[in-house]
Amino acid sequence: MRLSDYTDYTLRVLMYCAANPERLVTIAEIAERLQVSKNHLMKIVSELGRQGLVETTRGRGGGLRLLKAPAAIRVGDVVRGTETDFRLVECFDPASDTCTLTPSCKLKKVLRNALAAYFAELDAVTLADIARTARSATPQWRP
Amino acid sequence: MRLSDYTDYTLRVLMYCAANPERLVTIAEIAERLQVSKNHLMKIVSELGRQGLVETTRGRGGGLRLLKAPAAIRVGDVVRGTETDFRLVECFDPASDTCTLTPSCKLKKVLRNALAAYFAELDAVTLADIARTARSATPQWRP
Repeated sequence: MRLSDYTDYTLRVLMYCAANPERLVTIAEIAERLQVSKNHLMKIVSELGRQGLVETTRGRGGGLRLLKAPAAIRVGDVVRGTETDFRLVECFDPASDTCTLTPSCKLKKVLRNALAAYFAELDAVTLADIARTARSATPQWRP
Repeated sequence: MRLSDYTDYTLRVLMYCAANPERLVTIAEIAERLQVSKNHLMKIVSELGRQGLVETTRGRGGGLRLLKAPAAIRVGDVVRGTETDFRLVECFDPASDTCTLTPSCKLKKVLRNALAAYFAELDAVTLADIARTARSATPQWRP
């Protein structure tokens, strides 16, 4: 029931960018601020770039910035993008399902509903809602 | 975001007992039916006994049975009892929280709400709801 560290740091990278809308932020600075390796962050930023959420400018004075307004980035979508294992129980994967109770079992549906309720909460919240700082209280994001 | 195999099998042991209310079931029989080791099941049954959910009778003709009616066993409570790691992100554990965004961050509250929504779904469902079989369709559970 826990989220991966990868998800954890992905959310924090996005929050850090959202809290600094007026400038490019660097991986080195986020690494120091969040006390996490630059290597780990580079993978995260690369994936966020692939998803079109951040843009990276290389070279001196370079860095990253959000490509979407924080209010347009739903927490649920970020978590869906980083969490890979939603196999809540064995029978979620028909290929490995050996459970002989499956035909009469309603557990799968119950767990699917619970997961849907979980994401409904996260989908109602955007990056702008969670990254409230003095700066981002007044929306300053510019595309 | 996945549940442990331990939770998976715990639910199935309970479902199997619920589907066979008129007799004691054996660990050997559940092991064969669910294709899982007896050793693994013994730990699960021991923990279920500790929680007062099943009773084990030793010796010839022995086995286990539910100590509560399936309709009185909420899926949410079972999952709470078996899942140990609800540290959704680092800052859920103050002892290991190094995140410098924590003071202004609202992520923790959002994730707590999502987890609460998840469990609200599971708490609305009992073992009787998910273990529907020809037998358990007509409640036959006797204390």
